[in-house]
Amino acid sequence: MRRVALKLEYDGADFVGWQRQAVGISVQSVLEAAASKLANGAPVGCVAAGRTDSGVHATGQVVHLDLAASLSLHAIRNALNYHMKPHAVAVIEAADVAHNWSARFSAIGRAYRYVIHTRKARLVLSRGRAWHVDHPLDIDAMREAARALIGTHDFTSFRASACQAASPVRTLDRLDIIANGDEIAIVVEARSFLHHQVRNMVGTLKLVGEAKWRPERVAQALAARHRSAGGPTCPPDGLYLTEVRYPVDPFS
Amino acid sequence: MRRVALKLEYDGADFVGWQRQAVGISVQSVLEAAASKLANGAPVGCVAAGRTDSGVHATGQVVHLDLAASLSLHAIRNALNYHMKPHAVAVIEAADVAHNWSARFSAIGRAYRYVIHTRKARLVLSRGRAWHVDHPLDIDAMREAARALIGTHDFTSFRASACQAASPVRTLDRLDIIANGDEIAIVVEARSFLHHQVRNMVGTLKLVGEAKWRPERVAQALAARHRSAGGPTCPPDGLYLTEVRYPVDPFS
Repeated sequence: MRRVALKLEYDGADFVGWQRQAVGISVQSVLEAAASKLANGAPVGCVAAGRTDSGVHATGQVVHLDLAASLSLHAIRNALNYHMKPHAVAVIEAADVAHNWSARFSAIGRAYRYVIHTRKARLVLSRGRAWHVDHPLDIDAMREAARALIGTHDFTSFRASACQAASPVRTLDRLDIIANGDEIAIVVEARSFLHHQVRNMVGTLKLVGEAKWRPERVAQALAARHRSAGGPTCPPDGLYLTEVRYPVDPFS
Repeated sequence: MRRVALKLEYDGADFVGWQRQAVGISVQSVLEAAASKLANGAPVGCVAAGRTDSGVHATGQVVHLDLAASLSLHAIRNALNYHMKPHAVAVIEAADVAHNWSARFSAIGRAYRYVIHTRKARLVLSRGRAWHVDHPLDIDAMREAARALIGTHDFTSFRASACQAASPVRTLDRLDIIANGDEIAIVVEARSFLHHQVRNMVGTLKLVGEAKWRPERVAQALAARHRSAGGPTCPPDGLYLTEVRYPVDPFS
């Protein structure tokens, strides 16, 4: 057996999320069904760096799987893309990795991008690909509030109550808010994130942008260490898993 | 009657193009049907700055129409957007303009953006929104070839044989090729363009990027002043009408 790492792009709107569910089509189920065709029908399991929720997109999800196939990496990528049609997921790159390498446990960093469009008119080209907010947001206030989130904190106030992580402590290395016309991109990086952490942080920062929350309330919410102190979860439509980092990039 | 200018965004894949056709849904027919609802069912005609083809997108198309309605501009925009649902077109902005102002004839500049993705894997998030070329292109060679197209020329070699413009002479003010990872954006600006001119220029530059044409052949094709000397028409999927310029911006 050989272990192969794959970089994936997908449109979250077409799936119930990364992970297999009792009902609905997951990215995992589509990829594993395609991989099984390269294994003469034997089941193949895939492990992902980020278990994205329903509706969340990826431009740089990384997964690994074990194959016996002696195909070239190009042939593996092309065959998986062929078998995954017509689902909105594609393998962008494939690389051989060590047998003990894990897309999930070897990762040392994950980057997400959250896109908001602030305008009156409904979205057309970005429909399902961004959060539509029909009024302007105060970017400076959002940036001021975001400073409280950077660094190592107990993020209990910003994690889903169903989150199964052993510890609520995470280190947020980056939270940049980039405005370009009516588009606002919020770029976050951390070794790992709690369940719904990005969407809960963005949903909260939007309240600051609307002046419904003063910036300093975000620091107070963080200190409260209770989910009810944080703001609401924003929609998945604007969220993209853009990059997973490893000590050595398997695709370079 | 009052004359109103509208800025439109649309997804070209959903339409047979801007202009009304005997069969199929055009942007014009959807907009005119919505405008008619604001005119108690009376027919309303719309004139566009750029008569985009089937599959061509817009983020900044400009049109004008005459309405008797004494509604606010915000109410006109919202009502048109309501009535155009669920079609993939929206009014982004509305402005009052003079009775002799024309979205088409008052325009002094038009800008288009053409997006190419060069990668092996099929497109997912950009499907229908970019031209998929499954191998790299030589950007430097394309830029060298593009220089011959800038300025005032007889563009007969790059216009559709069905083009109805009186003169084949146009002045290309800008043709920039911007590479960002596997995405190539070709940005062009001119007072006006001939039918299929942008797509014929891009289809030709792609041949240069593949080294199927040497860069100097583009200048030779231009000098030949015959459509058969130019390269092929590229797909509409990657083309966006991004901006129309007027002596005074009606939306500012």
